[in-house]
Amino acid sequence: MTRYKLIIEFDGTPFVGWQRQNNGLSVQGTLESAARRYCGQDVVFHGAGRTDAGVHALGMVAHVDIDRDDPAEKVQNALNALVRPHPIAVLAAERVCDTFHARFSCVERSYIYRIMPRSARPALEADRVWWLAKPLDADAMHDAAQVLIGHHDFTSFRASECQAQSPLKSLDQLDVRRNGPIIEVHARARSFLHHQVRNMVGSLVLVGQGKWDRTALRSALEARDRAKAGQTAPAQGLFFNKARYPQGAETGI
Amino acid sequence: MTRYKLIIEFDGTPFVGWQRQNNGLSVQGTLESAARRYCGQDVVFHGAGRTDAGVHALGMVAHVDIDRDDPAEKVQNALNALVRPHPIAVLAAERVCDTFHARFSCVERSYIYRIMPRSARPALEADRVWWLAKPLDADAMHDAAQVLIGHHDFTSFRASECQAQSPLKSLDQLDVRRNGPIIEVHARARSFLHHQVRNMVGSLVLVGQGKWDRTALRSALEARDRAKAGQTAPAQGLFFNKARYPQGAETGI
Repeated sequence: MTRYKLIIEFDGTPFVGWQRQNNGLSVQGTLESAARRYCGQDVVFHGAGRTDAGVHALGMVAHVDIDRDDPAEKVQNALNALVRPHPIAVLAAERVCDTFHARFSCVERSYIYRIMPRSARPALEADRVWWLAKPLDADAMHDAAQVLIGHHDFTSFRASECQAQSPLKSLDQLDVRRNGPIIEVHARARSFLHHQVRNMVGSLVLVGQGKWDRTALRSALEARDRAKAGQTAPAQGLFFNKARYPQGAETGI
Repeated sequence: MTRYKLIIEFDGTPFVGWQRQNNGLSVQGTLESAARRYCGQDVVFHGAGRTDAGVHALGMVAHVDIDRDDPAEKVQNALNALVRPHPIAVLAAERVCDTFHARFSCVERSYIYRIMPRSARPALEADRVWWLAKPLDADAMHDAAQVLIGHHDFTSFRASECQAQSPLKSLDQLDVRRNGPIIEVHARARSFLHHQVRNMVGSLVLVGQGKWDRTALRSALEARDRAKAGQTAPAQGLFFNKARYPQGAETGI
């Protein structure tokens, strides 16, 4: 049995999300079908995080145990060939020790949320951004975002279906930057509550529209009440960016 | 009768190209249908350039005459509403004098060609890049590209179907730059021959792969023989970027 760590890019548009579900095509299920065709056995992929339907990934991390001793590159190439035509790409693969766990060993996750504020709806970026017809003040959004940094009760930004035991999380980064016509929100933490990034973005947009200021965002956080924060930003603007592991986690050092 | 100048973004994937054709959906035809529903008359859109099937545009310029006196913003918003669900967006519109012509007044066109060299095929950029599984030397490509700058007979990079009267063109810019995992080729000229950008990129890739050097590219140019140059790069990596007009062309000054 060999454990492989994989870095995976996917276009979330056609999927019900990362996780296997009964109601449609999932990224996990598509990878598991591909792996079954490769090695002839049922395998389970474990991801660093779940993603909702329509959410994309630039660098999701997953691990899988395969009852073979193949070089990592062979596994990568086989999966890439067998997932076709679905929009999933294994960008890198390595053999890791069996104490490595994509979810439980992960010490940091990062997301990017992309917003396109302009009058015309996007033609080229249609499924890759949250389109808003009016301009946003990105500097004000960045400034206000800093009140969310640190260890807080994030109940106001937590989905009602969230299964985490506690609403307490430490947010390490929430930067808002312009990148050409796109406003990018970069979020980084050990872990996030369900919909936390999308719910924080929904409130930041109120700041960008001038409806809220920094103080209003702080009040929403302190209210510990989902109804006091902004809307849930749509899934298609969200990208799982990276998962980080302690040095040596892959080798058991 | 009012003439409007429009700046248009489109995803070329579902279209047979800019130009109206009998064999499928065109960008021009889709805009003309939308305009007909807006103003109740048959109109013709004139573009700064034609594009092949699958080629995208970030800022195609077109003009159209409409038998109304509406503000440009109203025309823009109406077209954007009526082209739905097709991936076309009118980014800007202005009223111009009737001597302005999107094609004949244009003094410079620019294109961007995007190449993604990596082992895994693209999941998120599938219809937006030329995927090549092996690395490319972008610096060598940029260096070699400079031999094509200037006034030359570009027969070696001209499609057999090209309808231009002369193969002589002046190329003003051909820059090759890295942009993250993408290699971008930026090309700028008064005008281009049919397939000229895609054919130049096909030869530059031979340089990036180490199969050709700068001298080989110069020999291909000087041969004035299409068979001596590289392949035609695929359509989906090409983006019509901008069209430039002399100052005052819009106002007749």
